[in-house]
Amino acid sequence: MPDVVIDPAPLEPGTLRVIPIGGLGEVGRNMTSYEIDGKILIVDCGVLFPEEHQPGVDLILPDFGFLRERLDDIVGLVLTHGHEDHIGSVPYLLRLRSDIPLIGSTLTLALVEAKLKEHRIQPYSLTVSEGQRERIGPFDLEFVAVNHSIPDALAVAIKTGAGTVLATGDFKMDQLPLDGRLTDLREFARLGEEGVDLFMVDSTNADVPGFTPLERSIGPVLDEVIARAPRRVIVASFSSHVHRVQQVLHAAHQNGRRVALLGRSMVRNMTIAADLGYLRVPEGVLIDYKKARDIPDDRIVYMSTGSQGEPMAVLSRMANRDHEIEIGDGDTVILASSLIPGNENAVYRVIDGLTKLGANVVHKGNAKVHVSGHAAAGELLYCYNILKPKNVLPIHGEYRHLFANAKLAQDTGIPERNTFIGENGTVYDLREGRVRVAGQLDLGFVYVDGSTVGEITDADLKDRRILGEEGFISVIIVVDASTGRIIVGPEIHARGFAEDDAVFEEVKPKISAALLEAAQNGVRDQHGLQQIVRRTMGTWVSRRLRRRPMLVPLVIEA
Amino acid sequence: MPDVVIDPAPLEPGTLRVIPIGGLGEVGRNMTSYEIDGKILIVDCGVLFPEEHQPGVDLILPDFGFLRERLDDIVGLVLTHGHEDHIGSVPYLLRLRSDIPLIGSTLTLALVEAKLKEHRIQPYSLTVSEGQRERIGPFDLEFVAVNHSIPDALAVAIKTGAGTVLATGDFKMDQLPLDGRLTDLREFARLGEEGVDLFMVDSTNADVPGFTPLERSIGPVLDEVIARAPRRVIVASFSSHVHRVQQVLHAAHQNGRRVALLGRSMVRNMTIAADLGYLRVPEGVLIDYKKARDIPDDRIVYMSTGSQGEPMAVLSRMANRDHEIEIGDGDTVILASSLIPGNENAVYRVIDGLTKLGANVVHKGNAKVHVSGHAAAGELLYCYNILKPKNVLPIHGEYRHLFANAKLAQDTGIPERNTFIGENGTVYDLREGRVRVAGQLDLGFVYVDGSTVGEITDADLKDRRILGEEGFISVIIVVDASTGRIIVGPEIHARGFAEDDAVFEEVKPKISAALLEAAQNGVRDQHGLQQIVRRTMGTWVSRRLRRRPMLVPLVIEA
Repeated sequence: MPDVVIDPAPLEPGTLRVIPIGGLGEVGRNMTSYEIDGKILIVDCGVLFPEEHQPGVDLILPDFGFLRERLDDIVGLVLTHGHEDHIGSVPYLLRLRSDIPLIGSTLTLALVEAKLKEHRIQPYSLTVSEGQRERIGPFDLEFVAVNHSIPDALAVAIKTGAGTVLATGDFKMDQLPLDGRLTDLREFARLGEEGVDLFMVDSTNADVPGFTPLERSIGPVLDEVIARAPRRVIVASFSSHVHRVQQVLHAAHQNGRRVALLGRSMVRNMTIAADLGYLRVPEGVLIDYKKARDIPDDRIVYMSTGSQGEPMAVLSRMANRDHEIEIGDGDTVILASSLIPGNENAVYRVIDGLTKLGANVVHKGNAKVHVSGHAAAGELLYCYNILKPKNVLPIHGEYRHLFANAKLAQDTGIPERNTFIGENGTVYDLREGRVRVAGQLDLGFVYVDGSTVGEITDADLKDRRILGEEGFISVIIVVDASTGRIIVGPEIHARGFAEDDAVFEEVKPKISAALLEAAQNGVRDQHGLQQIVRRTMGTWVSRRLRRRPMLVPLVIEA
Repeated sequence: MPDVVIDPAPLEPGTLRVIPIGGLGEVGRNMTSYEIDGKILIVDCGVLFPEEHQPGVDLILPDFGFLRERLDDIVGLVLTHGHEDHIGSVPYLLRLRSDIPLIGSTLTLALVEAKLKEHRIQPYSLTVSEGQRERIGPFDLEFVAVNHSIPDALAVAIKTGAGTVLATGDFKMDQLPLDGRLTDLREFARLGEEGVDLFMVDSTNADVPGFTPLERSIGPVLDEVIARAPRRVIVASFSSHVHRVQQVLHAAHQNGRRVALLGRSMVRNMTIAADLGYLRVPEGVLIDYKKARDIPDDRIVYMSTGSQGEPMAVLSRMANRDHEIEIGDGDTVILASSLIPGNENAVYRVIDGLTKLGANVVHKGNAKVHVSGHAAAGELLYCYNILKPKNVLPIHGEYRHLFANAKLAQDTGIPERNTFIGENGTVYDLREGRVRVAGQLDLGFVYVDGSTVGEITDADLKDRRILGEEGFISVIIVVDASTGRIIVGPEIHARGFAEDDAVFEEVKPKISAALLEAAQNGVRDQHGLQQIVRRTMGTWVSRRLRRRPMLVPLVIEA
């Protein structure tokens, strides 16, 4: 078990224990474990993308290490849909035990399997679809269609002897979805009639008033922009947004243009989606990227990645003139995507770069080319009123989102004592329709950095922040092993530091003097001498230069 | 002179040379120089705040170093208004020559003087107001009232033998401003009748369609939120936004609450504004912060700084429970401010923290508690149509803003050849109503970091970015000065690096072997040996660990 803040009592037979492992207080790395009678079911296993105070980190995983001792008790991993914040950590969990059965829809599993292939893992999987029921150990699962910004998303009802949980995954309630696949409110109603003891519900847009506009409202805008574009059109979006790409294909087709896919993940995901019938490609519209340059400029649309300003993606490279497609006067670029907080500067740099090269850049800020994939407040109210759950645990969101969602539940009449705002690691026990907070595990961040998982600590990140802000100063001194006399140094080197190296001449005699005094006082061990160097240097650099760089003293015996 | 990209011809008598030094391609550090017949006038001298790729930097100054040789030719520095991006670099320019006359409105000069006092500079200054005319050397100046998010802002018409320039500074065209002081379009019309040869115009909101809402539309919202607040109210805004604070004072007064100012800059600026009559304080409303805690919670409003999530400002400290005002259930926090791109994560962290503590957080995203200080596209069209300038040079903005502004000018009939999109350092010569690009200076970024100005280079920042992302590895070897034999080492130390130090055991023999081979080949100089260490280590770390940390080899002779 991990460090605990409040130790939960041992789980009694017939009680369902629910532990959100990730996705509470953050947007990403969604993961929950459900345990009853010694068996564990997991729902989702996603990644979180790092913020600027986590420099150099590639990904952040849920802190599922406490399951290490319980791997054999895991009866299955349900994946609600194929987005990275729900499936991205699957390879890391399967490294611990590769035969945990994966349970999900056709498209979800296809995307997971493509990802696992890169990690050379061949999973055991069970394909399910809406309406289907499966018994997995002590868990009776029932899958319910939900609408989201990727096709084939599922909510899952988890029925146990202790009660029923409904977990939505990510969803919204588009009433005219492109593929006709609605969030199944009739099924929500039926489950509600039977009684839902705990409703775990997507909070991402709970603080957005009103209703998310229809996905299909974007089509006419794309059509108009493409119709008026004098030369090439480049559309950037998320590489898993099948319906957005569908609308681009349609608008291109209407305007007699062909479409070339750009970017590895775009090509991979859309090939999967087309093969499985989720993307309907009008005859002859898609063209290989290499053949696209033979097509006249006003007959082509490029569908690309990079809508978040990711530096290595196609769009950023175009903006930096580092891509073989050279953007110029008359080209049109459409960012048909959201702007994830934290990415603003990167995205604006891309927009500026493209504008400078002559492109007309169309984005969320100046045209209706994006709608969210998550239910806004108005939709959530429908949900609560149809389902009438006994208890509500808002998931998937920063604290303000969870809080807004709990308020909505309360507005529909669910008592405040039955709405729970938790943290990752909060332990909830469910029995006979009653939810009780049973404990709190101390779950942290597991950082992936290059090939390492969990080796980078918060202390390392603090080091990196100091290094990044102030640089470092190293002080090297070689002393005679027998006499303790200084043979070489102090040699002082600084990098990323604001001052000229010449400034250090002033402190060198102070360091030598401090070491001499220490030697006279009998201090001879390396660690002690290094501490003296650090203290002398630290005092000087803070008083004289008013700075706090990293100090790296090194006393070497020769 | 700085490095030049295109060398401008020597300036002929009777020609006006205009050089934007900062503020083109960026939002901040606005500064322009105007030269005719050997005399130079400067308009504005602001700072730019660093982005995440400029770690550890405090401020960025315009690269005005090329004026060093011409300091005695500067006849004055006009300051259009008191915001940091227009006055923040004044102390750094005055360090070069402290008696450059400052010319500005009463409030602007009061704010500059307070700033200069901290730098222990006593400036020479000339207070001007709208309608006033001043002859400064060869420049006939005329000042025109403009409306902005700080009172007492001025546009300046610069009349010379070569023609007339109108520079707006920052402005919008609120038609019902709180202080009744409109952007003087009648004066714009008169100047237009006389003939404006070059219009230098604020572009910040040129890509925002429509019109900026009235500042006074915020008042009723503040009033309603404060009326319904059960306990304390904390309003955060920019510390120079006199009219926003005015509306808070009014709304508090209406609701029988008193107001305490919080934060050093808020107290300083509002004291100045009240003393000079720009802020009208209702009798008995203001109360000293120290006395505020004696007032019942539902009778107090705190007016504070920190609306951008700045970590040391009052609001962040409250969110982190690091302020003596402990936020709790029933408190209301209003962020009556914009969200400057790049600050999103910091601001959302503050909102989350406050929500978690129990506060109801009201912000731009969920209520109309902010309007911009800059003219949107609709307003700029009015401007162009009333002024009918011969030539237009959009200033104050990223490239996309300048571009959008030039398009607006063209939409009103100004020929494309008479609209100029420039960069910092582009040299424009004006004569007989004709503007011509005469050259391009290579102006860079001047970084302020602690007490140093201009010492941090882009190479240092690149070092910092590498250190911040990947950390560093230092390799220390002590060799015998006479034989070249290794006495101590290789000692390898890493910080901010993702791997455990044990991994380095593998590379140590490789480094020793490489040095031995080098010694046999007669390489003995420190630099050469260090290069060998760097190469050996670099190859290994990149192939084996797929990383690119900073490598710091050090070969010491003893």
